[in-house]
Amino acid sequence: MRKNAVREDIDSVIRRIEDFGYKIHTIEGEERVVIGAIGVGDTSACLESLEAMDCVEKAVRISAPYKFVSLEFKKSRTVIRINDRVHVGNSEFVVMAGPCSVESERQILESAELAAKGGAHVLRGGAFKPRTSPYDFQGMEEAGLKLLAKAREHSGLAIVTEVMSDQDVALVASYADILQVGARNMQNFALLKALGRCGRPVLLKRGLSSTIKELLMSAEYIVAHGNNDVMLCERGIRTFETATRNTCDIVACAVLRELTHLPVILDPSHATGKRSLVPPLARAGVAIGADGLILEIHPNPQKAISDGAQSLDPAQWFHMMEDLQPYLALWKKSRLAEMGAGGV
Amino acid sequence: MRKNAVREDIDSVIRRIEDFGYKIHTIEGEERVVIGAIGVGDTSACLESLEAMDCVEKAVRISAPYKFVSLEFKKSRTVIRINDRVHVGNSEFVVMAGPCSVESERQILESAELAAKGGAHVLRGGAFKPRTSPYDFQGMEEAGLKLLAKAREHSGLAIVTEVMSDQDVALVASYADILQVGARNMQNFALLKALGRCGRPVLLKRGLSSTIKELLMSAEYIVAHGNNDVMLCERGIRTFETATRNTCDIVACAVLRELTHLPVILDPSHATGKRSLVPPLARAGVAIGADGLILEIHPNPQKAISDGAQSLDPAQWFHMMEDLQPYLALWKKSRLAEMGAGGV
Amino acid sequence: MRKNAVREDIDSVIRRIEDFGYKIHTIEGEERVVIGAIGVGDTSACLESLEAMDCVEKAVRISAPYKFVSLEFKKSRTVIRINDRVHVGNSEFVVMAGPCSVESERQILESAELAAKGGAHVLRGGAFKPRTSPYDFQGMEEAGLKLLAKAREHSGLAIVTEVMSDQDVALVASYADILQVGARNMQNFALLKALGRCGRPVLLKRGLSSTIKELLMSAEYIVAHGNNDVMLCERGIRTFETATRNTCDIVACAVLRELTHLPVILDPSHATGKRSLVPPLARAGVAIGADGLILEIHPNPQKAISDGAQSLDPAQWFHMMEDLQPYLALWKKSRLAEMGAGGV
Amino acid sequence: MRKNAVREDIDSVIRRIEDFGYKIHTIEGEERVVIGAIGVGDTSACLESLEAMDCVEKAVRISAPYKFVSLEFKKSRTVIRINDRVHVGNSEFVVMAGPCSVESERQILESAELAAKGGAHVLRGGAFKPRTSPYDFQGMEEAGLKLLAKAREHSGLAIVTEVMSDQDVALVASYADILQVGARNMQNFALLKALGRCGRPVLLKRGLSSTIKELLMSAEYIVAHGNNDVMLCERGIRTFETATRNTCDIVACAVLRELTHLPVILDPSHATGKRSLVPPLARAGVAIGADGLILEIHPNPQKAISDGAQSLDPAQWFHMMEDLQPYLALWKKSRLAEMGAGGV
Repeated sequence: MRKNAVREDIDSVIRRIEDFGYKIHTIEGEERVVIGAIGVGDTSACLESLEAMDCVEKAVRISAPYKFVSLEFKKSRTVIRINDRVHVGNSEFVVMAGPCSVESERQILESAELAAKGGAHVLRGGAFKPRTSPYDFQGMEEAGLKLLAKAREHSGLAIVTEVMSDQDVALVASYADILQVGARNMQNFALLKALGRCGRPVLLKRGLSSTIKELLMSAEYIVAHGNNDVMLCERGIRTFETATRNTCDIVACAVLRELTHLPVILDPSHATGKRSLVPPLARAGVAIGADGLILEIHPNPQKAISDGAQSLDPAQWFHMMEDLQPYLALWKKSRLAEMGAGGV
Repeated sequence: MRKNAVREDIDSVIRRIEDFGYKIHTIEGEERVVIGAIGVGDTSACLESLEAMDCVEKAVRISAPYKFVSLEFKKSRTVIRINDRVHVGNSEFVVMAGPCSVESERQILESAELAAKGGAHVLRGGAFKPRTSPYDFQGMEEAGLKLLAKAREHSGLAIVTEVMSDQDVALVASYADILQVGARNMQNFALLKALGRCGRPVLLKRGLSSTIKELLMSAEYIVAHGNNDVMLCERGIRTFETATRNTCDIVACAVLRELTHLPVILDPSHATGKRSLVPPLARAGVAIGADGLILEIHPNPQKAISDGAQSLDPAQWFHMMEDLQPYLALWKKSRLAEMGAGGV
Repeated sequence: MRKNAVREDIDSVIRRIEDFGYKIHTIEGEERVVIGAIGVGDTSACLESLEAMDCVEKAVRISAPYKFVSLEFKKSRTVIRINDRVHVGNSEFVVMAGPCSVESERQILESAELAAKGGAHVLRGGAFKPRTSPYDFQGMEEAGLKLLAKAREHSGLAIVTEVMSDQDVALVASYADILQVGARNMQNFALLKALGRCGRPVLLKRGLSSTIKELLMSAEYIVAHGNNDVMLCERGIRTFETATRNTCDIVACAVLRELTHLPVILDPSHATGKRSLVPPLARAGVAIGADGLILEIHPNPQKAISDGAQSLDPAQWFHMMEDLQPYLALWKKSRLAEMGAGGV
Repeated sequence: MRKNAVREDIDSVIRRIEDFGYKIHTIEGEERVVIGAIGVGDTSACLESLEAMDCVEKAVRISAPYKFVSLEFKKSRTVIRINDRVHVGNSEFVVMAGPCSVESERQILESAELAAKGGAHVLRGGAFKPRTSPYDFQGMEEAGLKLLAKAREHSGLAIVTEVMSDQDVALVASYADILQVGARNMQNFALLKALGRCGRPVLLKRGLSSTIKELLMSAEYIVAHGNNDVMLCERGIRTFETATRNTCDIVACAVLRELTHLPVILDPSHATGKRSLVPPLARAGVAIGADGLILEIHPNPQKAISDGAQSLDPAQWFHMMEDLQPYLALWKKSRLAEMGAGGV
């Protein structure tokens, strides 16, 4: 649509598209509204008819397998509002930190305090835990969600936590600010569809052996079902190398910035599985241009129920954040230059 | 338990174990009952106490991460009863065949006729389809399940079909004889737990980048939640090789027979992605000792909505089954020898 | 060339091609001579000119990246003569067996006796050993080659052994009947070029992470440098799975038979790394249609300097060969039918 | 040895070790001499005997599969002197840049000028080219080496170029300052042994599917055969992802710094295969703490014989180097702090 298009114009375009038998999906940017039409068959008649309308700036055929998430479709980068103070994809680098699992009230409140003190914007913590073994701790479930909400109250941090089943989406959305999809659920399509209607931002983790294209297709599921606020997360892929828990495909951060307008978050904790490797990879993630980090920290990693080996202890966490500051300053300078230059 | 143990004995053992604070899981074989106890901590006192009971043949500690599915835990191979005529894991090689998706009444009835005529025991066909793209055909859902039930009536074949969400388990179980877990859902733990209570045999496909151990852990989820009837399925893993759709880890069939008592099914259609490669791989699967095959066939592959390239047409399907006969005869001879020898 | 083409015809065609600036490579089959021309640029003028010659049956442009090794280029399957009794790629399945390394005179003579008694046609044994560590046994080198020659005299078996450097090609070729290229050297192009001129058949093992196409390109190096007698060997690729030493891409055997006229050998020892898995995989290799097997056997695997865990002991070796017989009978029947049908 | 040990002391220690039947390898650092003993069997008697000597500071058993390259064995980081001005592994970040192949005198002289102008220290350029296809350009060989020597004269840059066969080591060493081992030759053990005696620093590229441990073992080959000056190079590994040419395992740079004293170079050109991704990955490489970069640049990438898609054109090259400056300043600050702190 043209910049000056009004509601009436938009409605008339939507009616026109529907007359051709296509489904509609609309993304409202700050400056401009983009209307997507999904369907099969010959599109030329519809495109021609739309181009003839005054309020339409341009009608184009998107042929990439993913449409709404592509930078080709929407040229302005998506900025996701988490709460009044935190926006992802903008000129502020966003740090999410916290323990792997919510273990107790004391543990999560201490973690939130730690996270906030170190400069994090969002508190992470799992209440529903995907575990390879049925005999491992499966999470505190709703009790854990309640503790996360309490930690938000105490610390002012936003909350990100995982949801593992479409049945739980409404429950988790009633407590969390961001719903996380774990790597093993990246192609749980029932879950993705439910997240399209959850009304909360989603952090979508890349599957262990998913390609970048498949990650974008999974994001497309969420967007096509109604939710534009999707953050993508590189957390390491599975390869033959066993020196690290996963192999961090850091270049995926740069590739994604070429292909999509959605923000990209790096998870150096799962990508490495070893705490000494987290700070150097975090620096690299800032340098390559990710929009944020998600990290595991714990008041006492030796006693963590899960993922202790990759969690930073308080001293390491504060030291890492201090060490990151000059890199974050360079990041911000470069991001502002980019936004000034192309509006992206 | 000893072979002559009666219900009263079993109940007394269960009470004793529960007194020690462990959870119970029971597998009733034809000759003997095995009682599993799940818990943490020092087990020696409990074991000693059980060994002192007359009705207990042996009390052992299982330390593998998977317990109930391990051959160490239960030495007799699991035979799964699908219906009166079909048992998997026994001395009959089982063939499951059918289209990727249920597309129409005519297509599925023709497919069932084809499958039966070629000698299949089970009809496959997807009603809920996991698709990488939200814009691809997502399946006929319940209407498809109804058509599958109709095809069962007409052909006498059992039905295997995929379930994608824990929410749909009861629905799918009300129509299907076997519930299939797709590769992308192998670690959808909410789904696995629901399948533990579904009362139907499950065909669990190996994830694209899942290890054999992880496959067994996912089977353990289903068994630990109450369902002993799990078939494992090798369907190719993801590697760097692009000449085939996936890389068939055929040796996994032999490895699984060393590690678990559960039957193993090979899927040469997804493992190769190309119909000309299906018959040679099917032969290899019989030769290596799998318990069955699951194959894609279609009355008219050129018109298939999905997976046409890997579906056999009727002539190829009949030819393949004929070609397999001498290999199946060798398979049966070797299986009977094995069963005679060790009862496994 | 036409079937009745004489030397003079062939020479005239070669001159014509050279006039156009192309390089020549000739493959003389039993019935027909094929002349290849290698070069870049527009080929239409040359093709037209050749088609105008009476002695030329057909002039075609081969566009696959590999030419001489492709089934498109040469439709009759290559049969490689190892010695008077052994031909690979024909209607006899070929078995190569022996220890990983030549360790002593007694060990290799005993191994040769074992191999012959079990029905092998070729004795394997490494004199130059590629070892990950510089501190591991690097092989007996020329002394080992001499022992292999002695074992050939005693047993009548042909000899296959590895060559690791272009500098050693002449030396190894003076002792061995078949020169093996190890997986780690599949893209040692200096070595491949030297093997093009060695005058002996070559067994080319697939690299740990080489695609099927790259394997064919490496074979193309050897053929393009003058040696048509190349056997390809699938020995497992590197993946994330650690339950086996490598992941056997058994379907590669079937893919290669669609793409190339060269014979394909399967190595179940390196593909699995565990002796109990070797016999089932060997059966699968016969069933899928490989032309032969290469296996590790040892008079006393517990004392083997290298690869003991994957070597069959004498009893296992004899048992495996006996078990294979009905599968080999099916193999032969199917191979003869194929050769009768299409002459390939 | 103690810091004040003299030649006589060293000789006495060597004699003592040799008396126990071990082989000797000596690394002379700036402050201290380290003497390594290689052998098998019980080491306690020898260690005890050495500890009793006054000139010996400490006698320890190194059990890692790699010894001389491990940080456990030699705690001070190796600094490699390339020429009077360039040292790798020190407090200067080293940039190597140039075309994939030497194509002509004009091309390589222009490239050298470009490289120098942008701030590179070393000129790269292939004279012997490892190519998947025998029909692709194989390099200018010795003529190319002569052009590289000429480019060194003109530009003052040091030269790094690949050697592909042990037969060519002496020839390449007579022209080049650094000998490169390509990814496909990382386990060409004959070549590694020859490089142990070449008298020049070696740049050892990680194999496409080699683990970090295998990379260190290959470096160990070179060091154990007499050459301590080995640089390790991460250039991307082979995975299922096809969005980039390889998958850059950037964390390997950090892992290697924990395991070895040898310098680590990152190759963002081969790791990505796409020029737009090179600058962001180069930034990440600096941030994670690599010791240098090796990059492909070309006066006219569109006309490059090989690797044009991943070569930077002059404008991109200058822009990237300018953009890197603040990151290099942070790198230097952190490196100096580290050297000041622990002498490592």
